[in-house]
Amino acid sequence: MLNVAIVGASGYTGLELIRILHCHPEVAVTCLTSEQSAGKRISEVFPTLRERCDIVLENLEPVRVAEKADIIFTALPHKAAMEVVPTFLTLGKKVIDLSADYRLADPAVYGQWYEPHMNPANLKKAVYGLPEIRRAKIKKAQLVANPGCYPTSIILGLAPLLKKGVIELAGIIADSASGVTGAGRSAKVDSLYCEVNEGYRAYGVGGTHRHIPEIEQELSLLAGTQLKLTFTPHLVPMDRGILSTIYATPCKLLSVDSLAKLYRDFYAGEPFVRILPTGSLPSTAFVRGSNFCDIAPVVDPRTGRIVIVSAIDNLVKGASGQAVQNMNLVCGFPETMGLNGLALFP
Amino acid sequence: MLNVAIVGASGYTGLELIRILHCHPEVAVTCLTSEQSAGKRISEVFPTLRERCDIVLENLEPVRVAEKADIIFTALPHKAAMEVVPTFLTLGKKVIDLSADYRLADPAVYGQWYEPHMNPANLKKAVYGLPEIRRAKIKKAQLVANPGCYPTSIILGLAPLLKKGVIELAGIIADSASGVTGAGRSAKVDSLYCEVNEGYRAYGVGGTHRHIPEIEQELSLLAGTQLKLTFTPHLVPMDRGILSTIYATPCKLLSVDSLAKLYRDFYAGEPFVRILPTGSLPSTAFVRGSNFCDIAPVVDPRTGRIVIVSAIDNLVKGASGQAVQNMNLVCGFPETMGLNGLALFP
Amino acid sequence: MLNVAIVGASGYTGLELIRILHCHPEVAVTCLTSEQSAGKRISEVFPTLRERCDIVLENLEPVRVAEKADIIFTALPHKAAMEVVPTFLTLGKKVIDLSADYRLADPAVYGQWYEPHMNPANLKKAVYGLPEIRRAKIKKAQLVANPGCYPTSIILGLAPLLKKGVIELAGIIADSASGVTGAGRSAKVDSLYCEVNEGYRAYGVGGTHRHIPEIEQELSLLAGTQLKLTFTPHLVPMDRGILSTIYATPCKLLSVDSLAKLYRDFYAGEPFVRILPTGSLPSTAFVRGSNFCDIAPVVDPRTGRIVIVSAIDNLVKGASGQAVQNMNLVCGFPETMGLNGLALFP
Amino acid sequence: MLNVAIVGASGYTGLELIRILHCHPEVAVTCLTSEQSAGKRISEVFPTLRERCDIVLENLEPVRVAEKADIIFTALPHKAAMEVVPTFLTLGKKVIDLSADYRLADPAVYGQWYEPHMNPANLKKAVYGLPEIRRAKIKKAQLVANPGCYPTSIILGLAPLLKKGVIELAGIIADSASGVTGAGRSAKVDSLYCEVNEGYRAYGVGGTHRHIPEIEQELSLLAGTQLKLTFTPHLVPMDRGILSTIYATPCKLLSVDSLAKLYRDFYAGEPFVRILPTGSLPSTAFVRGSNFCDIAPVVDPRTGRIVIVSAIDNLVKGASGQAVQNMNLVCGFPETMGLNGLALFP
Repeated sequence: MLNVAIVGASGYTGLELIRILHCHPEVAVTCLTSEQSAGKRISEVFPTLRERCDIVLENLEPVRVAEKADIIFTALPHKAAMEVVPTFLTLGKKVIDLSADYRLADPAVYGQWYEPHMNPANLKKAVYGLPEIRRAKIKKAQLVANPGCYPTSIILGLAPLLKKGVIELAGIIADSASGVTGAGRSAKVDSLYCEVNEGYRAYGVGGTHRHIPEIEQELSLLAGTQLKLTFTPHLVPMDRGILSTIYATPCKLLSVDSLAKLYRDFYAGEPFVRILPTGSLPSTAFVRGSNFCDIAPVVDPRTGRIVIVSAIDNLVKGASGQAVQNMNLVCGFPETMGLNGLALFP
Repeated sequence: MLNVAIVGASGYTGLELIRILHCHPEVAVTCLTSEQSAGKRISEVFPTLRERCDIVLENLEPVRVAEKADIIFTALPHKAAMEVVPTFLTLGKKVIDLSADYRLADPAVYGQWYEPHMNPANLKKAVYGLPEIRRAKIKKAQLVANPGCYPTSIILGLAPLLKKGVIELAGIIADSASGVTGAGRSAKVDSLYCEVNEGYRAYGVGGTHRHIPEIEQELSLLAGTQLKLTFTPHLVPMDRGILSTIYATPCKLLSVDSLAKLYRDFYAGEPFVRILPTGSLPSTAFVRGSNFCDIAPVVDPRTGRIVIVSAIDNLVKGASGQAVQNMNLVCGFPETMGLNGLALFP
Repeated sequence: MLNVAIVGASGYTGLELIRILHCHPEVAVTCLTSEQSAGKRISEVFPTLRERCDIVLENLEPVRVAEKADIIFTALPHKAAMEVVPTFLTLGKKVIDLSADYRLADPAVYGQWYEPHMNPANLKKAVYGLPEIRRAKIKKAQLVANPGCYPTSIILGLAPLLKKGVIELAGIIADSASGVTGAGRSAKVDSLYCEVNEGYRAYGVGGTHRHIPEIEQELSLLAGTQLKLTFTPHLVPMDRGILSTIYATPCKLLSVDSLAKLYRDFYAGEPFVRILPTGSLPSTAFVRGSNFCDIAPVVDPRTGRIVIVSAIDNLVKGASGQAVQNMNLVCGFPETMGLNGLALFP
Repeated sequence: MLNVAIVGASGYTGLELIRILHCHPEVAVTCLTSEQSAGKRISEVFPTLRERCDIVLENLEPVRVAEKADIIFTALPHKAAMEVVPTFLTLGKKVIDLSADYRLADPAVYGQWYEPHMNPANLKKAVYGLPEIRRAKIKKAQLVANPGCYPTSIILGLAPLLKKGVIELAGIIADSASGVTGAGRSAKVDSLYCEVNEGYRAYGVGGTHRHIPEIEQELSLLAGTQLKLTFTPHLVPMDRGILSTIYATPCKLLSVDSLAKLYRDFYAGEPFVRILPTGSLPSTAFVRGSNFCDIAPVVDPRTGRIVIVSAIDNLVKGASGQAVQNMNLVCGFPETMGLNGLALFP
């Protein structure tokens, strides 16, 4: 039985980690931190946990946290993560970091999109934790940089095309939409029920979203050369889910069948990627609460475009579920352990 | 490993049974029936099941179903259940019936609220499957009549008061509200998204809802004498959940503390009933996807009323979760097996 | 053309006043205040107003506001209203106050539920602005205390029964549910989309909601004697609407027809109260955006109870629409002027 | 006072026509038809109309309808419209057709996407009713083909770019999302609350949606040459609204300011198109219930793309509001008459 700490437990990804790990047979959650709610029981913050997880939240003192845990999930805002991760690593702990702090290999790029990086030394240790792309390296990592939610949906959607070199590298567009948990749990007028409900809107239009460098880094690695994409996120009035509709131009015309085969072959044996049968399309509702990424590759015969639609639960495959998947890899557990739950529908 | 059949698998309670049983270590789902979708894979009807449960739906031929299963869940409309349950029983199968057909002990009462009962003989065998009230009998039952959703929330809410004889038996009011899954999955204009969304309404006002005789039967048994209640159901624009706000008049004034103690003592050791700490109130959001019933007993010092608020997920503790709880009892499995999942929040 | 000021314009009731008054042919909005957004255009706060109402929000300086307006709507939190209303009155302005500050005739009661009243002198001038009950007095008022949302739905629901003396005065219960705009527009975790969505919950259980003294004051006046009621509010995941389900015991048995006639007679000629045909029930969806109060009076023949269901849009008949109705009365305009818009459905 | 008939009044666009025309000072609704609900009052179908519009629905007998009305709105499915429109025209009536039947100038294209056209003769009379593009012709039309909802949002979004010739004609992508009213009011499992709620999905991926030929026809006319676009519609769990995010490649680099100026100049004086200030983005919530089309033109400096975001209420500017705007033009009323209502927010 491994002991697990969750740093930043009073946010939605923290709660989702607790929910998933509660059913994991090989780990025990032993430490939860929250600056805002320290001293309270986690079940006072999230009444879903009553009588199942009543741990008292504590302040984030890295050494004390490290004493209580073998592996640590950091579910903190960017910057806050790299303030404590070095201590955890020095103390020999394994870390799954859900923030953006260790996702970008080049600290200069981080500096350009966020702020100056405080811990470039550990960037080299970090492995970008998308198991379908980098499973072998993750298994040996001490520090896993858990991917962002939009990047997960887009990279998984495009990986087969880029790896196989069948699309043009210029002009890729990803049009994505997210549920409101993506905005976190802080008290802002913009996230109020009545501001969000019954409205659909774009944000970060024009290439300003901070997930862009992460997406481009991984797509470029897959393509073997530097590329750029146009990315537009949208906000959907629902709790969970990300759906990405991705547009690419094939180098030469692809049939629907050969496109489908390319995807099935690429993801053969993957436990959490489902290539939908031709004619079916994903919905975020069909992955809610599960660790699946559903993908439908489509050809538009009129315009020659390839259109890829991919769907995940942003809190599961887009955050905490993938983090547990990474923990399983890092700890040598079966990769699907604790992640077999079916989506909750409706 | 027991084999399980779900009769009527293409409705929401059928799907929820599949979802829950998928994580149950002692049973395997071996047979699913659906009149409307026979011949299709269940995963075509519910894409959440893709690559996890791809069983082909078949027509409901009772003998063939019985050959494939040790225990059978009937998730059918009323009347349809009692057309097949006798065959299952004759063939020696155990049955958990989620319909209303075997809930009312008196066939005349059934006839009054539904239609003439076709199988009064088996009514005597049936045990009303509310484990918190009737655990011992359920363990020995061949046929369990799984309670309705509203009744579960109301009976659990009132049981301690009636059993202890601390309230007046006349004048009890239950004001309940349900999510839309309660209306089922058939194509009706009234259940369309745009008809339901952004509206809250009462229905069945004036004592017409068919759950009334079931509630009164069980409350009367608890009270030891016949009683009537006023019941008003409402429809809430959300998928899942029932919350009941129940009003009763104490025989003599009760303090908040003694009321709380009464509830805690009554439900001591119950794995799925949570009596909330004084000052906390239930929300359907906090039980969504879980088998919990959350209860807050409150005293209104100004009017002397007792107000009980109880919340369940109508598809779990109000239907399929409770059915699995009953299966566990009937089969001798630990009562909580397969039911330990935490609520999905948000 | 009268000039109108809205004090506290950046909340939802302020916006709703602007929306309604925009189509009112006899008034012009000339002044909007907001402490938080002073200096911004109102259309920056609420983009719905772009190119239709671009007034710059100003700080609340009562004398300056009074210079710009003939009639003033105060859409402020309680206490903040009574800090400025006296100045408006002294300067000869008419005031429609949407706060609770002038609703309770007895300052001691106000003190008990809120805090010490700062302006008891003007309480005597204030008229409780429920036109269906007190139209004549409103026409002559300088200060109208616009009713609360829950009180409007409950008082209109009970008025015929109490005025005609056909129900027992003890034991009345009002079980109400509100959309989330009722919680206002301030940034609180409890009002976040993901906290509210897909959940239904009770709050203020046990007689603690501040609308209780207001409801009891008006019901007692209608009954001619002091009475108390049990009131439970609930929160529904939708933007707008209040539905109240009210339980009363008739002094002697009433037929459905005589009950319906009693309601139709009482509200005959009322432009904004609709008594539904027998068999129909209200939904908040059917009054959304309109000034209607829909009422269905029902008899439960099994228990002898009368059950009244009433529905309003909390922001319209429960706040800003009723405020405009009061303005029309106070200013001698036709009572329905500017309020003829139909509900927006879906 | 003109007399107006609405053919197909029991759908959502029919209801929305009634709602809007109720406040129009120059017309009276005198005839409503519905095959499914003939004999019922429209207020029984839509309780929002109670005591405001209680007209009895009748069967669609074209001659009788024509006798009662000067102008006729046909809110029918495609094909059903062209079965009756010829009669209305022959009888000298003006027709605003909300179906697809007269939108495509070339009957062969109609035949390719729908079925053989039954009334090509009248296609020449029909004017595509997008006032911002074709106001002069609409004023003289007897038959107006009211645009589809997606086409309205996309054509208004792209018109300035195409008319000014500043973008490449190949490779335009429109990624759109619609509320559920777009699916109509017929009883289908796919449109049930619990199937739609809490899910976001694409449909018609790969160039299959029937609005494509309409969009391409109008864009090609604006561009002066035939073009094709890639179009992906999505379904959002909300009642109303369409938001289109449109991607185009500029012929030469455009600054944000010059792009904004181009849009402001193009739409100068338009009463229902709002070009948002730089930095602001549209939401469907900000146009709900209003006839506005909000547009934000954005440049992505990293990729050189132009990204246009446009939002409408699909039932208003995307259907019934635009139909009334067309009626105003056809009848010589002020174009904005009856359409000045502000959006309902929240």
